[in-house]
Amino acid sequence: MIVRPHEHWLSRIFVWHGSVLPKIFSRLLLNFLLSITVIAMLPWYSSLGVKLTVAPFSILGVAIAIFLGFRNNACYSRYVEARQLWGQLMIASRSLLREVKNTLPPDTDIASFVRLQIAFAHSLRMQLRHVPQEPTLAKYLTQEQLTQVLAVQSPANRILLLMGNWLAAQRQQGALSDILFHSLNNRLNDMSVVLAGCERIAGTPVPFAYSLILHRTVYLFCIMLPFALVGDLHYMTPFISVLISYTFISLDVLAEELEEPFGVENNDLPLDAISTAIETELLQMNDETDIPAKILPDRCYQLT
Amino acid sequence: MIVRPHEHWLSRIFVWHGSVLPKIFSRLLLNFLLSITVIAMLPWYSSLGVKLTVAPFSILGVAIAIFLGFRNNACYSRYVEARQLWGQLMIASRSLLREVKNTLPPDTDIASFVRLQIAFAHSLRMQLRHVPQEPTLAKYLTQEQLTQVLAVQSPANRILLLMGNWLAAQRQQGALSDILFHSLNNRLNDMSVVLAGCERIAGTPVPFAYSLILHRTVYLFCIMLPFALVGDLHYMTPFISVLISYTFISLDVLAEELEEPFGVENNDLPLDAISTAIETELLQMNDETDIPAKILPDRCYQLT
Amino acid sequence: MIVRPHEHWLSRIFVWHGSVLPKIFSRLLLNFLLSITVIAMLPWYSSLGVKLTVAPFSILGVAIAIFLGFRNNACYSRYVEARQLWGQLMIASRSLLREVKNTLPPDTDIASFVRLQIAFAHSLRMQLRHVPQEPTLAKYLTQEQLTQVLAVQSPANRILLLMGNWLAAQRQQGALSDILFHSLNNRLNDMSVVLAGCERIAGTPVPFAYSLILHRTVYLFCIMLPFALVGDLHYMTPFISVLISYTFISLDVLAEELEEPFGVENNDLPLDAISTAIETELLQMNDETDIPAKILPDRCYQLT
Amino acid sequence: MIVRPHEHWLSRIFVWHGSVLPKIFSRLLLNFLLSITVIAMLPWYSSLGVKLTVAPFSILGVAIAIFLGFRNNACYSRYVEARQLWGQLMIASRSLLREVKNTLPPDTDIASFVRLQIAFAHSLRMQLRHVPQEPTLAKYLTQEQLTQVLAVQSPANRILLLMGNWLAAQRQQGALSDILFHSLNNRLNDMSVVLAGCERIAGTPVPFAYSLILHRTVYLFCIMLPFALVGDLHYMTPFISVLISYTFISLDVLAEELEEPFGVENNDLPLDAISTAIETELLQMNDETDIPAKILPDRCYQLT
Amino acid sequence: MIVRPHEHWLSRIFVWHGSVLPKIFSRLLLNFLLSITVIAMLPWYSSLGVKLTVAPFSILGVAIAIFLGFRNNACYSRYVEARQLWGQLMIASRSLLREVKNTLPPDTDIASFVRLQIAFAHSLRMQLRHVPQEPTLAKYLTQEQLTQVLAVQSPANRILLLMGNWLAAQRQQGALSDILFHSLNNRLNDMSVVLAGCERIAGTPVPFAYSLILHRTVYLFCIMLPFALVGDLHYMTPFISVLISYTFISLDVLAEELEEPFGVENNDLPLDAISTAIETELLQMNDETDIPAKILPDRCYQLT
Repeated sequence: MIVRPHEHWLSRIFVWHGSVLPKIFSRLLLNFLLSITVIAMLPWYSSLGVKLTVAPFSILGVAIAIFLGFRNNACYSRYVEARQLWGQLMIASRSLLREVKNTLPPDTDIASFVRLQIAFAHSLRMQLRHVPQEPTLAKYLTQEQLTQVLAVQSPANRILLLMGNWLAAQRQQGALSDILFHSLNNRLNDMSVVLAGCERIAGTPVPFAYSLILHRTVYLFCIMLPFALVGDLHYMTPFISVLISYTFISLDVLAEELEEPFGVENNDLPLDAISTAIETELLQMNDETDIPAKILPDRCYQLT
Repeated sequence: MIVRPHEHWLSRIFVWHGSVLPKIFSRLLLNFLLSITVIAMLPWYSSLGVKLTVAPFSILGVAIAIFLGFRNNACYSRYVEARQLWGQLMIASRSLLREVKNTLPPDTDIASFVRLQIAFAHSLRMQLRHVPQEPTLAKYLTQEQLTQVLAVQSPANRILLLMGNWLAAQRQQGALSDILFHSLNNRLNDMSVVLAGCERIAGTPVPFAYSLILHRTVYLFCIMLPFALVGDLHYMTPFISVLISYTFISLDVLAEELEEPFGVENNDLPLDAISTAIETELLQMNDETDIPAKILPDRCYQLT
Repeated sequence: MIVRPHEHWLSRIFVWHGSVLPKIFSRLLLNFLLSITVIAMLPWYSSLGVKLTVAPFSILGVAIAIFLGFRNNACYSRYVEARQLWGQLMIASRSLLREVKNTLPPDTDIASFVRLQIAFAHSLRMQLRHVPQEPTLAKYLTQEQLTQVLAVQSPANRILLLMGNWLAAQRQQGALSDILFHSLNNRLNDMSVVLAGCERIAGTPVPFAYSLILHRTVYLFCIMLPFALVGDLHYMTPFISVLISYTFISLDVLAEELEEPFGVENNDLPLDAISTAIETELLQMNDETDIPAKILPDRCYQLT
Repeated sequence: MIVRPHEHWLSRIFVWHGSVLPKIFSRLLLNFLLSITVIAMLPWYSSLGVKLTVAPFSILGVAIAIFLGFRNNACYSRYVEARQLWGQLMIASRSLLREVKNTLPPDTDIASFVRLQIAFAHSLRMQLRHVPQEPTLAKYLTQEQLTQVLAVQSPANRILLLMGNWLAAQRQQGALSDILFHSLNNRLNDMSVVLAGCERIAGTPVPFAYSLILHRTVYLFCIMLPFALVGDLHYMTPFISVLISYTFISLDVLAEELEEPFGVENNDLPLDAISTAIETELLQMNDETDIPAKILPDRCYQLT
Repeated sequence: MIVRPHEHWLSRIFVWHGSVLPKIFSRLLLNFLLSITVIAMLPWYSSLGVKLTVAPFSILGVAIAIFLGFRNNACYSRYVEARQLWGQLMIASRSLLREVKNTLPPDTDIASFVRLQIAFAHSLRMQLRHVPQEPTLAKYLTQEQLTQVLAVQSPANRILLLMGNWLAAQRQQGALSDILFHSLNNRLNDMSVVLAGCERIAGTPVPFAYSLILHRTVYLFCIMLPFALVGDLHYMTPFISVLISYTFISLDVLAEELEEPFGVENNDLPLDAISTAIETELLQMNDETDIPAKILPDRCYQLT
């Protein structure tokens, strides 16, 4: 995620880092070169009776813009939902620990429960980013817990089960009444909602054909655009063609980034920063002192 | 569902499998041939004083694009909601089993309850895909249960009732307090929400007239398009006509696929994979060892 | 509701039943005749210096299409919400009966409670469709109950009160603890949500001015369209004018149907089928044998 | 709110009452007169070399239509949410009274509680419409209650507190267990949601700049439109200019009405009717006989 | 937030304060001057064979308008959600205090709990606006509480923990049963939802590339617009160019304001007024007399 400070409106036009420009620069250059070729070839193919006008491209351009708008909206919704789920994880983590601290007897070993909570957040992050989990989880789990967690399809869900076991043990010992156990258990259910929600977003892309149709029409449109413009604009063709292509291609590329919000591209969610914030929050609530350093954006305003 | 790896933007333009192209190829070919006929007939019907221009088609094209955008959005919403419902089934299944394991005495026969949970997921899948349920359910249910389940309108709902009976029996035996029974029962209600939600999506299509109006206008528009373009574009007519037709027809066809997300077409939900994932998850949570193999995409990246 | 099987894309263009075509045929015919008159009158009013071009109609057409798109979306949302409410009624009915069966002693007269539940679904349907309720309700309610129910503003709400009374009586007899009564009572609240939601949709139309503005602009646009097209298209005017008018008028008419989803028009919800399905479901859950026949679509694929 | 019966599509075009036409008639007339002036002045300013064409107005018109569409959607969402909140008040009122009647001993003075519930609905309505509350509330509250209620910032919230006090008194007397008190208290929370939701809609308009930008561009567009049209349309300019202006201005004006749904304009919510319906419902549920008359639409189909 | 009274439609066109005009005036002036330069240079670059027409700008303009519409919608959603979260804080604050007053023994020191509630609202506001918290919080918290609160990452969350401690102490003393503690604790969870929701909106902007692409295309479009218009409009170019630029640039700037709703710009949320209203409400509910003055809009209708 980019957390760029406000700049002058004029200087913002020329931003390079953090934009999708670096990624699509070669495609725009290709479009520019194609436009120049088209200008050069104009006399030849005009003599063949081949001609293209802007009017049909106007229909096509507006139609593509409309469909692209809806698709970008769909991809952005996934991004927003993913962020909301991580926000809910923060909420559930705080509420769970607050309830645990407020209801269990003072001599309970809450620190080990906090470790499980932190492990859940990191495990979910690593599961979504396909990072090996063992090194990180070993810091928070006992060896026995670690073995159980790494053996299953969804490690985060097993951690949830371990948290449930911990609470059940408290209930067995009479430290929790059924009503309070029920309440704490609902917080675990909230975390289960976050887990399965993230798995769903990560595992179910926007229907492939939806992305493909727009990808295809956008690029075919941009390839044919110089031919349509050259009759009217002549020497100005490359500039206008690149400008229009930029508008369409950059939004197509951005939609692809937003579609998978858990990646590590420029416009993806800063899961490292969020999971560390959850860890800090939980440790501070339990008045522990070994707090991890806050993750800050790098020199390119990039937060991971 | 297609889970295609990222490819080069250029090669993606030529993707054939997994797109809707194979389905609409013949229609686009027809459009191409019609365009050629129109070019050939141009002198004849020009002499009759018949002429069409692009301008009115621009109004029509933009209007259809707008309506198609809204309708595609409506169909995509059904797809998203269907996927969310199955995600909720994963959530409820995990939470239910976690609560059962954490609250019931250690000597309870939880395995038989897990069988009911797995049977629910498979039964729902088979109900939505109109597959005969007996062979699969026989693996998870006793003969008596099976008879009851197959006798009713909604087998999955009867399985839910059996799960309720099982919990009620635990309560009768004093293994569950009222508050914990209430909590577990709420998880059954969550599964009831999933069941009725899926039945609703499967049973209530987007209003037929909505689909029909857009289907009709899209095809009439595409049929008349060559006549409108030929005056301006002449020899280029077939190419532009096919490109515009592709944009509109492919989105119309995709909307039809997304409208019924429980089917087995390219862009439908991978219910086989999801219900098997639920089964695996539940078996692993109960530390059982006979885990079904994970369903992977086939060679065409198709996941069912 | 139309539940039409999939047909060939070509034959679907010519569908008559179930579309809005029969309803708007006369208006399109009028548009066709007007177009012919306009062609005939062209020389006369051209000589008066009156002329219309397509360009301003392009602005108007696109603007109307955009507003119509948003309004159709609003009307479709009402349709979707109405269907979801009835889905929630199915959910609440099933959950309520499952909880009642699982928590009350085996000798309870559950059948009379099921009668109340079924009466609620039918009463809601009849209230929404303004059908006299006495004949149907008499099948499910005692004479005393019937008198109470028919005396009030909202019969379905009185049935809900009777269900509450029945549960309260069980609690008074000690058959239900407070926590279980609370849980069952929440299901009644869910049914209250459905009831008031349906009353809201039925009682509060889309703001009249919203419908009116679009109705008016659509028809004025279609009336003036032939005058704008005739200069460019001449003999082709009637065909293009009718095609564009069909696109706009059919969507305006469909929006009106969807706006009131509880009616009995082609694209309204099949409340008869849904309420009968609820009845069947409840009777089967209680293992009763006198099940009503399933309501199937008629020869025109129409389900009421 | 207008509850107009269905009319013939043709006669609906000429509706005057209930539309926004009366409000904007003078502006459309001004536009008409301006158009005539423009026609008269055409030779003079053509000679100055001043000319306007439709093409740039097409960009502007479509852009404004798109933004207006989104803004109207935002305003309509407020209207819908406001209506839903009042629907939730109906739900909470019914559920609260049903639970009170079903759980409290038969000799409880429920009538005084019903008075508080009715007072809440009326107080909320009067607070939203800035009507003096004392005369109406005096009918339902004791003198002591009235003094408390009128002394605070939000009278309706104080009534909620009084209802809470009443329930707390029942609990103190042992008539309500904690679990049932908790359940009833949740209904009060539901009413609190309605209260704060309505206050939010009433107190936070759509951002002023959003309304202003569209207001300004719509009117500047309409003022300049005749200049752009006159070159092409000449004598037809006034008619087309007024038609296009009507489309844009009427939607701008309607958006302003919907933005504040609690007013007493044509398209605002019928709070009088809704709050009276709630009163009737509660009195009938408590089997009281002094029911207020139902509020019906007036001769212009207007319901307040 | 601007709370401007209704004005005549004509005078509203000329509003200056509260609009985004002051902010973008220099950019529009630049556009105006550029247009004049373009007119002056027209003969020169026409002789070079450079020419631009409106047609390709029409495609670009409509595409940008569509994307801008969607992006503005996304930013407006953030504004609406932020306002809803503060509305939920009002709801939770009222409900929490009502429940506390109704369930705790009369001799409880509720005033100190009210101080914590007020401190939460102010702390959240100051956290979102990056204002030093110590001076304000010192009014509501004891020295010991203050030290704890200022030591952590999220002061508001620590206040929530203190509220939980207070309630837990009541439960320990036997003043609260588990069920009532659970109920009150749920209100704290509601406040936790508000807290994390606001943190999320403040910490996660709309993806930077989304804002950037539209910013860039809007300004490039406006810069090139005079070149495209000058051929058709000549002397009228500056006026039309500024009008179109105003439409696009003002919406781009407004979207930026709405994107961060917790700031102190014209169109941001009036957090001062809202948090003071919450304080007033809570003090009045507890029948205290030292009520802060209501915050009213300033002379420019601005409410902070």
